[in-house]
This record gives sequence, structure tokens and C-alpha cells, in this order.
Amino acid sequence: MDFALTILGVSGAAPAHGRFPTAQVLQVQNHCFLIDCGEGTQMQMSKFTIPRNKVNQIFISHLHGDHIFGLPGLLFSYALNNRVTPIDIYSPAGLKEMILAQLNPGTQLSFQLRFHVFDCKSSQEIFENNDLTVSTIPLNHRIPTCGFLFQEKPFQKNMDPEKIAKYDLSIPQIIAAKEGHDIIAGKQVIPNYELTLPAYRPRSFAFISDTAYHEDIIPVIKNVDLLYHETTFCEDAMENAVTTKHSTAKQAAQIAKSANVCTLITGHYSSRYKELDCFEKEARAIFPNTKLGLEGQVYTVERRRVGE
Amino acid sequence: MDFALTILGVSGAAPAHGRFPTAQVLQVQNHCFLIDCGEGTQMQMSKFTIPRNKVNQIFISHLHGDHIFGLPGLLFSYALNNRVTPIDIYSPAGLKEMILAQLNPGTQLSFQLRFHVFDCKSSQEIFENNDLTVSTIPLNHRIPTCGFLFQEKPFQKNMDPEKIAKYDLSIPQIIAAKEGHDIIAGKQVIPNYELTLPAYRPRSFAFISDTAYHEDIIPVIKNVDLLYHETTFCEDAMENAVTTKHSTAKQAAQIAKSANVCTLITGHYSSRYKELDCFEKEARAIFPNTKLGLEGQVYTVERRRVGE
Repeated sequence: MDFALTILGVSGAAPAHGRFPTAQVLQVQNHCFLIDCGEGTQMQMSKFTIPRNKVNQIFISHLHGDHIFGLPGLLFSYALNNRVTPIDIYSPAGLKEMILAQLNPGTQLSFQLRFHVFDCKSSQEIFENNDLTVSTIPLNHRIPTCGFLFQEKPFQKNMDPEKIAKYDLSIPQIIAAKEGHDIIAGKQVIPNYELTLPAYRPRSFAFISDTAYHEDIIPVIKNVDLLYHETTFCEDAMENAVTTKHSTAKQAAQIAKSANVCTLITGHYSSRYKELDCFEKEARAIFPNTKLGLEGQVYTVERRRVGE
Repeated sequence: MDFALTILGVSGAAPAHGRFPTAQVLQVQNHCFLIDCGEGTQMQMSKFTIPRNKVNQIFISHLHGDHIFGLPGLLFSYALNNRVTPIDIYSPAGLKEMILAQLNPGTQLSFQLRFHVFDCKSSQEIFENNDLTVSTIPLNHRIPTCGFLFQEKPFQKNMDPEKIAKYDLSIPQIIAAKEGHDIIAGKQVIPNYELTLPAYRPRSFAFISDTAYHEDIIPVIKNVDLLYHETTFCEDAMENAVTTKHSTAKQAAQIAKSANVCTLITGHYSSRYKELDCFEKEARAIFPNTKLGLEGQVYTVERRRVGE
């Protein structure tokens, strides 16, 4: 499970039918990234055994309550457990004031809380570590809102271990080969493809939070492995989708198809739907590889070599 | 179920082992009173089928996060459902600012939100309707904190229906009899006890939120039918109880015994306890009629006539 998305909440604005508001955790290697943090996120993290101390970065798409009301409780619990590792929160402007207003009275955080503000006018890279980058994806909602694109960095080629022995390669030769160079062993030139296995393919996940149908995102999310795209309504409530600037399952599927993604995951279901059949049915009619987003469900992307 | 307490959350400060933070609902006749509102309260209300639109008053004991972080979400959901009935919130100073800071961006409430501030220096009556009064109970915690005493108002005597026919009583005579007067029918004086049944006994519930062992509350909660008293720790963690100004199960039981209450309900269990046996065992050793507070459990007080 070195690239896995766990859904913690799939409810729209009002929690209903036992469903919790939006929160997801993307686990890449040993890091967990929390994306949105609706009320009850900390309880859902415990329920679905997310290692909460591995979360050091939190990405917030926008400041509607169903995407942020779980933050004060989560931060408060970290403090109770005497957390020392800093937390970085990335969000549109205004979150810091809201959170500090909740934490002030008598609450001393045991860790540093760092707020990073982005605007939602254009896509920006907002985070980078050894393994991946995170960029914003401007959306079309009632207040400034961004999705997020998580992209693994390109991997180096791997050596074919048999060839190291066969040609008795030195460390500098191995390094050169991994960088893509041909190698001279004695008088022989060994072409790079003979020595190496293809590199692993970088994986990607796009989180498309609350938005009206918005074709501008298509080039940004082109070919991603996993696309979460909100599906607040089915076609029966098209008018509500337009009024509230949300998407239908059909619209999300259309985006998935146009962007040629591998897998579409649905979510953010309106409380008007007790059963979720229409989301699956309407999305699959357009984009067959749709998976119904469900709480506790884990969606993994396997590691594959280029060309596999 | 015309006097019933439903427990929505029994966790201490950090939600753990599937337990939610503090929230309770007292249902008296057709009214529901929400007492404290930890994170996830609105989900627990749905889970345990509390008629949330019957809640018009919310009583908040103090401003620690585990007692209030569910408020923004609940209010936000009321607004989404276009609630029009006003909500009255009773709390120590500071809550209004915290809540408004969360609701401001883009949130228009569809109903009036009225904040009522009490101090925790002395007991005050803060609410009254036709059926009951609510008074504060100052506690001893790290920040200003009050418990609440819910007391039904005295009931009028009920007429014995057979006697109305037997003496052919008029409406003014019935009213006089219900007020406790003897009645003159012809030349005969009929003593009041002959015409009426004893009145119903007013019932009472005391909610003792976070507090160190605090004997000052004993006279205030004397003889209540239901006493919820926090029990954050068992005896093994007596030192933590002292440091954090919380109570042990044994201390709560001692209070229940000294106040001669009918039933003690425990709760606010620290995350250090996965199992709850020690709370029940330690409290019952001192106060046998202890009931372990559990989420979804309903504790009712039956209607009885004086002397029954």
C-alpha cells in the first residue's frame, strides 16, 4: 500500500444516513496527507486505523464548514497527545483566523501550527518532498475553492542485478547507468537498455472538491491514475447542481472521460439520496471504470514499470 | 418517555475507542434540551433518532473543545435545512465570538441565534418554560464551568373523575379543588383529599460536567432523580484527576451518596480506558444504583404521584 487513498467521509454539506462530511487521506510511502477535514474526521481516522501521527500536512480545498469543522478537534487531540512535530495547513485565506478563534481559550498547542495560504486564480505548486509534489487546481464553486493534484516525482531507472554481476560493474558505473548512460566495460560498450530495468511510472491522484462542471481542469488532470471528483447530485437534481455550483455524477464522468483518467471515484453525496445507486449507474454509463466512493474504502495504485 | 435522558457522547477530551465527546439530550414532554455539543453531536443525534428540530435551547457547560466543537456543524446543518425557529444558547462568556468566527464566511443562518451568557460564581436560574426551570451549578474545573439542574415545576393536583360525577361539580369548583381547596356542595363540605388524587411529583436531572471533587454541589443536587456526574478516571489515575481537575468514579459516587440522589450515571471516560469495568465497579462499591453512561442509552424517570 505505498500509494493508497482512504475515504473518510462521503457526505455532502449536511451529514446524513450515517455518512460523514468530506475528508480523505492519501498515503504515499511513509507519509499521510490529509485532504479536507469535515466534522468527525478524527473519529473516522481512528475507525479506519489511519496512523494519524504520520499526517504532517493538511490540504483544505475551501472554507465551507463541511470541509473544515473537524480541524479544531483534530488539532486539540494532537495537543492532548503532546505532539511535537509541526503541522502545515494549506488553504485559501481566512482559515487561520477561524481556527485560532476556536483554539484560543485555555488551549496551548504542544506543536507548531503553520498556515500556508494559496489563491485559487491559477494552478500553483504548493508542496514538495522527496517523493511528490502537490499543486492546486482552481475550481468553480461559490467561494474560492481549489482541488489538488498529487504527483509522484520521476523515478530513476533500476539496475538489473544480474547484469551488475555479469559485467562486474563498479559503483560509479552503476550510478551512470541508473542515470541513463551507456557503460564502457573493457573495450565493450554496453547499451543502457541492456543494464537497466525500466523505471517505475510516477503515479498521480487528483482531488476535485466542490465544483460546478468545469472543463478548465481537464488539461491539468489529464491521465491521472485516480480522480476523485465530487458528485453531489444525480441527473434528477440537475437544477440544484447549477444553483449550488456542484456537479452531477454524469458531469464528473464526462470530465473523467475527457481527461482520460484511469479510475474515477465519486463522493460528496447530497442528503437527499439515501441510496447511492444512481451515482454509480449514471457515471458508469459514461465512464465505466467508476468506483463508488464509500467511507473506509481504500483505493490503491500499484507500482508498475514504464511499459508494463 | 416524557422525562428521558439520551447520552450521545461519553468520551473524555480525546475521542477514543469509538466513543464521541460529551453531548446529552434531555427530553421533557415535547421539548428537547441539548446539553454540551462535542464534535459529531449532529451525527449522534441522527444515529440515535433525536428529533433535532425539537431542540430550541442548547446549554454549554464550558468552552473546552470537547464540549463545543460540534456546535458549528449542527448550526450549519440547521441553516441548510432552512430552520426558522430561533436557537438559544446558554454558556459562559466567549462562545459567541468562537461560533461567529466559524460561521462568517459565506454562511447565512436562516434562523435567529441568541447567545445568553452566565457566570459561574453562583447558581442562577437561566431558563424557564411551562414545564421546568434550568439553573446553573458552579463547578471546579480549569476554566469557568457550570453544571445544570433541570427541575420540573410543581404539578397541580388531579381530580378524581368519579368524584366530579358523584358531587356534580361545576368548573369553578373543579378549579378550586385542583388548587387544594375544600368544596361546599349543597350543605356538605367535601374535604379536598376526598376529591383529588395526589399531584405528580416533579422530576429532576443534574448534569455535572467537568469538575474536580466538589462538595459544594451537594445541597444543590440533593435528592435529584438522575445525576450525571463526570467520571474521567478510575482510582488508578487519582493523580491525573487532581492535576486536570476531573473526578474519579469513586468521587462521583461519593457525591451521589451524600446528595441522596436516586440514580448516578457515569461518563467522560479518559482515552486511557478501553474497557469501562473499573468505573462501574468503583462507583457501585459506594453507590449501588450507578448506571454506566453509554452512547445511545436512554435513562427515563417515570411519572409518579406524591406518596407512590
